[in-house]
Amino acid sequence: MFDITPLTDSKRTAIQQKIDQKTKPPGALGRLEQLAMQLALITGSDEIILNKPTMLVFAADHGIAKEGVSIAPPEVTQQMVLNFLNGGAAINCFCRANDIALEVIDAGILVPINAPKLTMQSLGRGTNNFVTLPAMSLEAVTKGFSLGAKVVYRMASEGCNVFGFGEMGIGNTSSASALMSAITGIPAEECVGRGTGISDEVYQKKLSLIQKALKRHKNSFDDTKQILSALGGFEIVQMVGAMLAAAECNSVVLVDGFIATVAALAAVKINPAARDYMVFCHQSEESGHQKLLQYLQATPLLSLELRLGEGTGAALAVPLLKAAQAFYNDMASFDSAGVDAV
Amino acid sequence: MFDITPLTDSKRTAIQQKIDQKTKPPGALGRLEQLAMQLALITGSDEIILNKPTMLVFAADHGIAKEGVSIAPPEVTQQMVLNFLNGGAAINCFCRANDIALEVIDAGILVPINAPKLTMQSLGRGTNNFVTLPAMSLEAVTKGFSLGAKVVYRMASEGCNVFGFGEMGIGNTSSASALMSAITGIPAEECVGRGTGISDEVYQKKLSLIQKALKRHKNSFDDTKQILSALGGFEIVQMVGAMLAAAECNSVVLVDGFIATVAALAAVKINPAARDYMVFCHQSEESGHQKLLQYLQATPLLSLELRLGEGTGAALAVPLLKAAQAFYNDMASFDSAGVDAV
Repeated sequence: MFDITPLTDSKRTAIQQKIDQKTKPPGALGRLEQLAMQLALITGSDEIILNKPTMLVFAADHGIAKEGVSIAPPEVTQQMVLNFLNGGAAINCFCRANDIALEVIDAGILVPINAPKLTMQSLGRGTNNFVTLPAMSLEAVTKGFSLGAKVVYRMASEGCNVFGFGEMGIGNTSSASALMSAITGIPAEECVGRGTGISDEVYQKKLSLIQKALKRHKNSFDDTKQILSALGGFEIVQMVGAMLAAAECNSVVLVDGFIATVAALAAVKINPAARDYMVFCHQSEESGHQKLLQYLQATPLLSLELRLGEGTGAALAVPLLKAAQAFYNDMASFDSAGVDAV
Repeated sequence: MFDITPLTDSKRTAIQQKIDQKTKPPGALGRLEQLAMQLALITGSDEIILNKPTMLVFAADHGIAKEGVSIAPPEVTQQMVLNFLNGGAAINCFCRANDIALEVIDAGILVPINAPKLTMQSLGRGTNNFVTLPAMSLEAVTKGFSLGAKVVYRMASEGCNVFGFGEMGIGNTSSASALMSAITGIPAEECVGRGTGISDEVYQKKLSLIQKALKRHKNSFDDTKQILSALGGFEIVQMVGAMLAAAECNSVVLVDGFIATVAALAAVKINPAARDYMVFCHQSEESGHQKLLQYLQATPLLSLELRLGEGTGAALAVPLLKAAQAFYNDMASFDSAGVDAV
C-alpha cells in the first residue's frame, strides 16, 4: 500500500565529490558527512532542502497499563496530551527552541479530549490488554496505517519534507518490547527495560507478563501486521503508517527513542525501502534500544541519556540536520576559497 | 591574575527542585538536566540566561610544522583564516546555522593578513620549532594570556555570556600533544594522534619529535606557564587566557576538540575554579582526546567523529544549551500543568 522508491546509488559519487571538495580534510566532518549524503540523496543532490520540519506526537493508551507495569497511571496519558496542547511539555520546549512545528494526535487515548488543536483520529479508547487478548483487530491495524499516513500526506502537501515521530502512552514500552521480541526473535529478557523508571519488582512482573503474552499469541506471528494486531498500540500502528507515508513522500524520517524505533522496525519489515529515509536520532537509556539499533544497523546521532519519549530525541537532532545542510549547501570548495587541497 | 569565583553549592538544591518539578519522570532528560544545572549555577538559578553566544577562533602557526608532521603546509593556516573571513569554512556555516557570532583572531600566523574583520593580536610570526628551542618566551605567554582575555572582556562588556573556543594552526596537534604529556605526565604515545589524518610513517616521525622535545625541555616543566613557553602555540596561550577571563566574567566556556581541551587543561591547572564554567562539547576522533577528557572528568555532549577543530564541535553543541535553557525556563511543572507527579 506504500510505494517507496529506494534511494538511488547513481548520485552517490557526485554527492561525495561535492563533500570532498569542501575546505576540510576528507572525512573531517565525520557523522555529519554521512548525514549530508543521506539528506542529499533524499532531498536533492545540488542542494539539501529541509522544509518545515514537523514533529508528530501520537498518543494512545494501553490495556496492559491496568497491570501496573508503569511508573504512572493511565490518566497521565491524557494529562500529558493536555500539557502538549498547552505548550508545557519538554517536546514543546524543544520544538520551539529548534523551530519545529508540533502536531499532537489522539490515536486512541482512554478519555478523549475535545480541543481544536488536537488531531482526532482515535482507533478506540485504549487497546485490549494483550496478556489476555489481541491488542486490536487486524482491521484496526490497517485503519491505523491509513490514519497515520493521512496526517503525513496533508503536511507533505503543505511542503513539509522532514517528519519527526514521537509518542505518549502509559504502558507503551511494554507493547514495544513485546513487538520487538516477536518481530526480531530476540528473547524478551533482552527487549524489556525499565521504561521511564520502574523498580526491580515491577520489572520482573512486566517481563513475565510479556513472556506470557508472547507465548499466547505466538501462532499469529507470521507477518508484521498480525504481530501489530496481537501486541501493538494504537499510537504505534499510526506511527508505522506515518513513517511509511513519509518515506513514500521522499521525506526525512526522524526516528526518536525506543518506541519510535520499534515502529520504524515494523515499517522496515513491511517495506524495506523505508530504511533509506530514516535518520536515527537518539540512543535512549531504555535497555533493548541499543540491541534494536544494532539489528537495524543504525547509529544514532545523539546519546544524551534521555528516557522520555515524546519525540524529544528527534527534536534535539534537528539542528544537526541543519548543520549538515549548511555545510553541504554553503561551505566553500578548495577552488573557490583558494585553499590548497589536502 | 584571574579572579574566578567557584560555583556555589548553595543553589543546587533549589535548582534541582525546579528541575524535578517539571512534567517528566525524575532524570528523564538525562545529560540535559546536568547541563541545565550547570548553566543555572553560572547564569542564574531563576532563569538560565544565554546572551550573544560567540565563537572565538584563534589562529597561529607553529615552528614544528617545518618538520612535515601535518597533512598540509603552513600556508594553509593563512588560507583558512581568509576562508573564515570570507564566510566559507565549516565553522562559518555552523555559526550561521546556530546563530553564533564569530570572531577570528590572528594570534600569530606566519604571514599577517590585513583585513578589517580580523582581530590582530599577533604574538609573532609563528612559534619557534620546539624540538630545538622553547616555542616562545615566558613574556609571550603572559602577553598571550592578556590578549586572549582582552577579547573576552570586550565581548562580555557587550553582554555576551557564552564563549566558544576554536583554533586553526597547521601543526597545532603536535604542540597540544606535547603540552598534554608535559602537564599530565601521561606518556607521549598516549597523547599523540593523527591530527586531521597523517600516515603511519608521519605519525612515527611526529611521535619521536615530540618525545625528543619533551626530553629536551623537561627541566622547565615546573609550572604550567613554563610548559606553555616550552611547547605551546600562540593560539593556545591566547585561548588559555580567554578561557580564564570568560570564567572570571561568569560566562559559559564551550570547549571544542583536542587542542581546545588542552588549553582548558592548562587553564584549569592555572586556576582550578575555571573547570566549573566549562562545557565539554565534543569527543573528537583525535587519539589522546578521550584520555584527556577522562583526566578532566569530562563527558562531552556530542560524539560525531569530527576531526577538524575551528570550534566546530562547540558550535554544534550550542542548540543543546538552548534546549536545556528552554526546558529549564519554560517547561510546565506538575502543579501548573495538572499532571500527576511520578
